[in-house]
Amino acid sequence: MKQLQEIIQDKDRLFFGDEVPEIYQTDHFVKQVEKVYAVALPLTAKEVVKLVNYAIEKDLTIIARGGGTGVAGAQVPITGNELIIDVHRMNRILELDEETMTLTVEPGVQLQDIQAFVESKGYYYPPDPGSKHSTIGGNVATNAGGMRAVKYGTTRDYVRELEIVLPTGEAVTLGSLNIKNSTGYDLKNLFIGSEGTLGITTRVKLKILPLPKYKKSVLLAFDSLRAATDGVLAILKNGINPTALELFERSTIELSEKYLNAKLQSQIGNSYVLMTIDDSDEATMLRKVESVGDMLNPVALEIIPLTAEEAEAAWMLRDHILIALMQFTEYEMLDEVVPINKFAEMIMYTKELQDKHGLSVINFGHAGDGNIHTVLMKESLDEETWEKKRKALLDDLYNKVAELGGLPSAEHGIGIVKKSYFERMTNSVELYLMKKIKHAIDPDNRLNPGKVL
Amino acid sequence: MKQLQEIIQDKDRLFFGDEVPEIYQTDHFVKQVEKVYAVALPLTAKEVVKLVNYAIEKDLTIIARGGGTGVAGAQVPITGNELIIDVHRMNRILELDEETMTLTVEPGVQLQDIQAFVESKGYYYPPDPGSKHSTIGGNVATNAGGMRAVKYGTTRDYVRELEIVLPTGEAVTLGSLNIKNSTGYDLKNLFIGSEGTLGITTRVKLKILPLPKYKKSVLLAFDSLRAATDGVLAILKNGINPTALELFERSTIELSEKYLNAKLQSQIGNSYVLMTIDDSDEATMLRKVESVGDMLNPVALEIIPLTAEEAEAAWMLRDHILIALMQFTEYEMLDEVVPINKFAEMIMYTKELQDKHGLSVINFGHAGDGNIHTVLMKESLDEETWEKKRKALLDDLYNKVAELGGLPSAEHGIGIVKKSYFERMTNSVELYLMKKIKHAIDPDNRLNPGKVL
Ligand SMILES: Cc1cc2nc3c(=O)[nH]c(=O)nc-3n(C[C@H](O)[C@H](O)[C@H](O)COP(=O)(O)OP(=O)(O)OC[C@H]3O[C@@H](n4cnc5c(N)ncnc54)[C@H](O)[C@@H]3O)c2cc1C
Ligand SMILES: Cc1cc2nc3c(=O)[nH]c(=O)nc-3n(C[C@H](O)[C@H](O)[C@H](O)COP(=O)(O)OP(=O)(O)OC[C@H]3O[C@@H](n4cnc5c(N)ncnc54)[C@H](O)[C@@H]3O)c2cc1C
Repeated sequence: MKQLQEIIQDKDRLFFGDEVPEIYQTDHFVKQVEKVYAVALPLTAKEVVKLVNYAIEKDLTIIARGGGTGVAGAQVPITGNELIIDVHRMNRILELDEETMTLTVEPGVQLQDIQAFVESKGYYYPPDPGSKHSTIGGNVATNAGGMRAVKYGTTRDYVRELEIVLPTGEAVTLGSLNIKNSTGYDLKNLFIGSEGTLGITTRVKLKILPLPKYKKSVLLAFDSLRAATDGVLAILKNGINPTALELFERSTIELSEKYLNAKLQSQIGNSYVLMTIDDSDEATMLRKVESVGDMLNPVALEIIPLTAEEAEAAWMLRDHILIALMQFTEYEMLDEVVPINKFAEMIMYTKELQDKHGLSVINFGHAGDGNIHTVLMKESLDEETWEKKRKALLDDLYNKVAELGGLPSAEHGIGIVKKSYFERMTNSVELYLMKKIKHAIDPDNRLNPGKVL
Repeated sequence: MKQLQEIIQDKDRLFFGDEVPEIYQTDHFVKQVEKVYAVALPLTAKEVVKLVNYAIEKDLTIIARGGGTGVAGAQVPITGNELIIDVHRMNRILELDEETMTLTVEPGVQLQDIQAFVESKGYYYPPDPGSKHSTIGGNVATNAGGMRAVKYGTTRDYVRELEIVLPTGEAVTLGSLNIKNSTGYDLKNLFIGSEGTLGITTRVKLKILPLPKYKKSVLLAFDSLRAATDGVLAILKNGINPTALELFERSTIELSEKYLNAKLQSQIGNSYVLMTIDDSDEATMLRKVESVGDMLNPVALEIIPLTAEEAEAAWMLRDHILIALMQFTEYEMLDEVVPINKFAEMIMYTKELQDKHGLSVINFGHAGDGNIHTVLMKESLDEETWEKKRKALLDDLYNKVAELGGLPSAEHGIGIVKKSYFERMTNSVELYLMKKIKHAIDPDNRLNPGKVL
């Protein structure tokens, strides 16, 4: 304890046992979590190294934490013997390098601050998870996705360099400013998406793009889910390259229509696709919007190009689905992914499960990349029935995901919430390789043990 | 021997000791290579598994081989105790899936066959290394790059799924058809670019794109190398997103002008940039070409949009630089990479080295991604002087690459040729991690030992 106080000298950056703020013991989905040995909030990579060495000496396990917005239980204590290293105060934007088009940041910088900063300089950081106050360190650890992944990819695609403190207390820099690379093993990608089980990120160099000058959203209404997903496939195949391609049903968007007391621009049909197209050239953008119109005219019920204001209103409705849902029921949100040609089949199947298990299910999703957010709703069920139905439904659901060649997590990660499904759905040789690699890098199983693997 | 003959029953697919065709004992750069225990040419993944198990039993080391076009010595025998598993006869195109826009191939399919096949169906496989008869298995193992990497990325970006035989004889599939993924460690990227030291690829699912409908090349002439590299940076920053952006000097292109008895469309200036722009929309493409003109008018000496025929002639000249060079001297080609804002400085430095060491040096390169092909020319030097000068120059050169934050290999790999520089230029913790991972996956050091690490 005294030793720890020497490493972290400010009182407001160190908490022991009972003093630990409750937030460290909760998660959006995981309810019963353990107490924590201590929480430390370092300000520098050096402090992180010292904290890791302290944990080694005292044989504590370590959890790295950023914004705490993770929804897979990967950031919560489960053994009671954890030193949480919360890096959210390491939140400086260090350098914008316009020549290499990179931004260097500390791991605790919030996504919204990165986006605002680069946009004020005429640049663009595309990854856009809904949780704008998540940190870049957390985004890297979960390979966070978001709305614009269909055109721009996920966090992985924007990480040029990572500075990492290993579970042995050594620091290492992985990746570089070089764009092309065939020099040894790709370690950087191994650490991205590893949910804090291989190392603690203390600095990130991000790739940024020129800010697209023009964008336009279009709302497409369809009379069935199948027609909507067919429309999505047609858009993807024709080189339109949309920035965002979100799908939701009428019954889903009605939740946020009520909550926001607003109306979506289309009120007919069963399913919608909300699409954005961006470009550095206005005429090109408009031509793409037009060609979507020509292409989908025969199948869509309505094709509504939105003004900037209308677009904002429509996206507001889309973004508030979950918040609206929260008002009237507990729920569990999944983030399964299937190959895009199986998207419709997967969504249809969740409807079958709704009937089979008597549990309300809605879906919305990043249709452009096969990532569905299926939401199970507790509504008026008692705890026990909910748990039972939930589990039975999830068993069926993940079996189907596996059958369609899908994966349990597109963007939220495995954590503890999806661990059993992950293990069941993954080939044993692949799991074995992952375990060997975890052991090679973290032989004492010190970093976030029990998560993912 | 008999056991091996049972695994590979066709005589023309198995060679022992002295019968082994000479090609297996040569490389473009590595001259003294060892004899081989045996060479086997499997036709199926099952045969590959059996061969690996045979090697385990007999304690042989294994080298996987594809087209044999590698230029880093990664595919050559060095111990005399090697079983070469040459997969180039596993060369079937298995499936084009238009819904998921993927192509499934065996590892021995040649790049040129993949390109021709998908283009005949209206699709596009962007990675485009100069060696069109290299195999996809080799391309994956070296993360091959090529001309279009500036816009489309390298082989890594097009691998959706790999079927691999591990050094333990087990088979595993890594990656999937899912576009987004936050499910466990990213093993697929670890195997890509590992130069056959972690596993043998027996099947690949590639991502393909819609074929861009229009393309146009533009030739830009500048009065200095610095002006040319400044022009490149300006193009990259303005969202033009060119498909290819190649830089060469007058003295370099003169080699192929002579060889082909043809003239580049510009005969003035010191340095050239040959650029291609593609798009699914003709007007967009033309507008981009125009905007490059507007942007570079003040700095370029000539800006020449090329007709399709002229473009073909210009690219032909660019592609023949090496072949032309081969006619009159032995040479060593490097593939160093530096952050793009250091590109000019790096090239200038090679000119200093030319004077300092009295060794002729030319450069050409993928200017859009900082990848330079520096070529050292032996000319009339005797072997000993050449070796001495070469080594001294390389020492200086790689020191500079490291100083500028660069890497020894952008696309050819480390093999044995660049191993000592790689080790010197890489942080010891990073090297240690790579070795730990190699050991975790290949504890007996059976696959391509002595290469890379
Ligand atoms: C309302 C809401 C909307 C969301 N929308 C999206 C979405 O659209 N797309 C999406 O992908 N996710 C989304 N998420 C999930 C979540 O925001 C992401 O997983 C995010 O990346 C977590 O970042 P964080 O900083 O909050 O990390 P935390 O919750 O603090 O931690 C998450 C994981 O990252 C690790 N970690 C954190 N910092 C570091 C570090 N410096 N070094 C090593 N490991 C570290 C932790 O150990 C843990 O394993 C959403 C969450 C909410 C609550
Ligand atoms: C004229 C010429 C031009 C070139 N231009 C370029 C260029 O523009 N860009 C570029 O990147 N490269 C280029 N190269 C280099 C070379 O073509 C690439 O490295 C190519 O990817 C090698 O493929 P290959 O099938 O010939 O592999 P090989 O030479 O047979 O092997 C190369 C490496 O790959 C491994 N390997 C091969 N097949 C497998 C498999 N199935 N499983 C596991 N490992 C395997 C080998 O063990 C070895 O480590 C060029 C080479 C030449 C001769």
